[in-house]
Amino acid sequence: MQNKGILDKFNKDDSFTTVAEKREMQNLTFVLFGATGDLAQRKLFPALYNLYLEDKMPTSFSVIGLGRREWTNEYFQSKVEESLHAHSRRPVQSAGLQNFLEKFQYCPLDVTDKLSYQNLRSLIEQREAELGIPQNRLFYLSVAPQLVEVITENLKTSGINQTKGWKKLIIEKPFGSDLKTAQQLNKKLSEAFEEVEIYRIDHYLGKPMVQNLASLVFANPALGSLLDLKQVANVQISANETVGVENRAGYYDHAGAIRDMIQNHLLQLVMMTALHLPEKITAKEIALKKIEVIESIRPVSKEDAHNHVVRGQYEAGEILGEPVISYLDEPGVGMNSKNDTYFAARLYIDNPAWQDIPFYIRSGKRLDKKSTKIVIEFKNKAKEINMHPAEGIRSNLLILEINPNEGISLKLNIKEPSSDRFEPAYINFTTNSEDQSEAYELLLLDAMLGNATFFAHWGEVELSWKWIQPILEAFEADLIPLHTYRAGTTGPDAAEALLEADTFNWW
Amino acid sequence: MQNKGILDKFNKDDSFTTVAEKREMQNLTFVLFGATGDLAQRKLFPALYNLYLEDKMPTSFSVIGLGRREWTNEYFQSKVEESLHAHSRRPVQSAGLQNFLEKFQYCPLDVTDKLSYQNLRSLIEQREAELGIPQNRLFYLSVAPQLVEVITENLKTSGINQTKGWKKLIIEKPFGSDLKTAQQLNKKLSEAFEEVEIYRIDHYLGKPMVQNLASLVFANPALGSLLDLKQVANVQISANETVGVENRAGYYDHAGAIRDMIQNHLLQLVMMTALHLPEKITAKEIALKKIEVIESIRPVSKEDAHNHVVRGQYEAGEILGEPVISYLDEPGVGMNSKNDTYFAARLYIDNPAWQDIPFYIRSGKRLDKKSTKIVIEFKNKAKEINMHPAEGIRSNLLILEINPNEGISLKLNIKEPSSDRFEPAYINFTTNSEDQSEAYELLLLDAMLGNATFFAHWGEVELSWKWIQPILEAFEADLIPLHTYRAGTTGPDAAEALLEADTFNWW
Repeated sequence: MQNKGILDKFNKDDSFTTVAEKREMQNLTFVLFGATGDLAQRKLFPALYNLYLEDKMPTSFSVIGLGRREWTNEYFQSKVEESLHAHSRRPVQSAGLQNFLEKFQYCPLDVTDKLSYQNLRSLIEQREAELGIPQNRLFYLSVAPQLVEVITENLKTSGINQTKGWKKLIIEKPFGSDLKTAQQLNKKLSEAFEEVEIYRIDHYLGKPMVQNLASLVFANPALGSLLDLKQVANVQISANETVGVENRAGYYDHAGAIRDMIQNHLLQLVMMTALHLPEKITAKEIALKKIEVIESIRPVSKEDAHNHVVRGQYEAGEILGEPVISYLDEPGVGMNSKNDTYFAARLYIDNPAWQDIPFYIRSGKRLDKKSTKIVIEFKNKAKEINMHPAEGIRSNLLILEINPNEGISLKLNIKEPSSDRFEPAYINFTTNSEDQSEAYELLLLDAMLGNATFFAHWGEVELSWKWIQPILEAFEADLIPLHTYRAGTTGPDAAEALLEADTFNWW
Repeated sequence: MQNKGILDKFNKDDSFTTVAEKREMQNLTFVLFGATGDLAQRKLFPALYNLYLEDKMPTSFSVIGLGRREWTNEYFQSKVEESLHAHSRRPVQSAGLQNFLEKFQYCPLDVTDKLSYQNLRSLIEQREAELGIPQNRLFYLSVAPQLVEVITENLKTSGINQTKGWKKLIIEKPFGSDLKTAQQLNKKLSEAFEEVEIYRIDHYLGKPMVQNLASLVFANPALGSLLDLKQVANVQISANETVGVENRAGYYDHAGAIRDMIQNHLLQLVMMTALHLPEKITAKEIALKKIEVIESIRPVSKEDAHNHVVRGQYEAGEILGEPVISYLDEPGVGMNSKNDTYFAARLYIDNPAWQDIPFYIRSGKRLDKKSTKIVIEFKNKAKEINMHPAEGIRSNLLILEINPNEGISLKLNIKEPSSDRFEPAYINFTTNSEDQSEAYELLLLDAMLGNATFFAHWGEVELSWKWIQPILEAFEADLIPLHTYRAGTTGPDAAEALLEADTFNWW
């Protein structure tokens, strides 16, 4: 193993187990950097409210919202209420609403100004005293990536993170923009927080169907034998979007699909899919297994990357009957930008379980359909013995749908009565998504409880960047062609060709 | 193998392959004994009509209806039309109807009167000449079992079955009432027809889902590994009815569930389930494999039968809110009858594939629900390691529903987000039953085409009786208690106890 060190260190970190397995909810302060922002409005306030409705919030808690703007507590509370009406999955109930909103206080803050942090500290302590909350402090950084380092440094120098209770840091992607910057960022964070105190959000890990992957085989011995790897032909993981770059061109044009989707979400899905755990194991063991998987992904060299990777960029086209402009015409995109809005790759996991079974991953914007799913394709005997395709035996598929709907399907071949033809039959299970907790609810709850199972740990992040780094360099050196694709299609032809070379096709 | 002889004979019978694999539709005469009866009205005429609508009938065909009553052709045709309006799954279409009805002619016949057969012969030949049909004759015996022998004998002595084309005999259950009578009957039939000319209808084999069993594993390698037998805990085959004895007491009170359902339908389902064929094989090979299965069922001795068999009889109760009378009060049932209206058994198939995996079979009348299904229960690791039942991990099930709906389901355990509890999730596929051919359509078509795959062959029938015989004798000697059960329940408690002794329960 290349990164035995990481694993050993992780393995010895006993505090991880203690923290991760602790499931008792304690009173706490939720310190939210970026409280005036979009994520807070759309996801975080509604998530906290739905947890509150379910009696899952602590008995006593305080939310301190931070932002540059000069908002009053009253105005902040009105914005929180507004967000609930607009985005809560449950209707807002008058009972208890005032009590919920009163937990929220606002503190204007210039994140680079050390003095501001003294005001923050006073407010936190005042509320802790008023509400009888021990010094359990959760810092949520919903801010631009370049602010993360200065905030954590100031949290440290101000003494806010020297608590008598526990402290935790939740951060959002991006976690660096390449291996080096990720390592630098982590070094900075680790000066203020222990690894076990850092909760890196990957909201794909908050999807119930993804969380199910860890226990699916253990809880379903039938699926265990279904996934007997001698029978698996390949695994396909897709995260396809119909949206374009939206209003994120400033960030996206330098990130591309590879940083925005692949290094984090898609590689996390690869790890979760490959876990294939036959036993019930602890959160810590899951994290170790994930590291074992990502460590086993066969490295791709800068020079060889073009044989395994397809990059694409969308041209003008049509989505759902509406004309859409090309990526290069999007406001904020650089002239002649060679940024990737589509990425596909073939990878191999060199461990005994997955040896020689290709994993295909892809993600793109402006595709024909919004769909995040994992498809496991089984070997097809009819193909092996050259049965005539007209007889209709297609490959069996196990399909785990993650977004926009969640579900499990098994695609079988069922014989038509009185003929030799087979017809495909899908056996389906779809969750009732209205009743389903949103990813942020599950993740915030887990973070408050100290369950780190479904967060990205440093080992995973670093090893993901290590695998990605040579491809980034091949992109920069223009060693991999940039294929264009019409908006509203399934992506560049080269992505189809990648699978056809192995006698497969995307599902 | 106890019955190596049967297998060898079967194996050498090359004509079987020729006939069975022949799939070309030829013009023919359909000679129907029992044309005024219930089966003809409800099933046979509608089946022929639906095949006709699908252009699956021969270009030219003649149907000769036979019965004791003195019907005219016109009256017969009006009865046929009446049956289509009442029982055809497709609406009757005026186009082509007259043409279809004109195929039907009636001939009054006393089946014991040799002279009558000369009339029949004349009519068959006259119609063959009129319609340009070669001497391909299909004799369908929809008559009381005691008439089968005399009819086949008279078909022979009259020379009707000495054709220049082919001849086939279709017969319905019951095929004997024990091993000896079945052997006698078969001997008689074989004086007039070759084994390859005899099509023994078991309408359960006409169900599309049952026909699928033979190709399910071959066409679906994923299911092949799912049915990796190391993972199977047990197999349960149920054919449960809500109806009582109806107007069949005269027959049923001497037959019981054991002869009416178990010896034929349930043992056929056991054979079809246990086939588990990984390759595409011929009809002949399927027949041979079925014999191998039934030969491998571990014999039950008369003395030991009470350890593996439960017999029951219904008492008064309620079905769907309506009170129903007890079996003993049904008209036509003998006073103090000890006849079985419920039968359950545990059996083992002593071959390497199924060694030590119990098969549980059951069938009964006046149960809570009408349902024919095959349930494969997988081993449950949670049970093995004594996980607390509250965590909700139940056994995975593969459920093949045969009647009243057809479908495949897989029962899985899906984790509730943010908890350690699992919830059952059914992934389902249900066929559109309106569009589905009825069993009799499929079976009549196969018989006309000479495809014997889904008929009961003599080897299977004889070996089924051999397995059943000691149990029949144990019933007669009263070595097995007769348990009563309330109508509208799931059957006698003793049937639950049979599985509980093995730590299982009926699904």
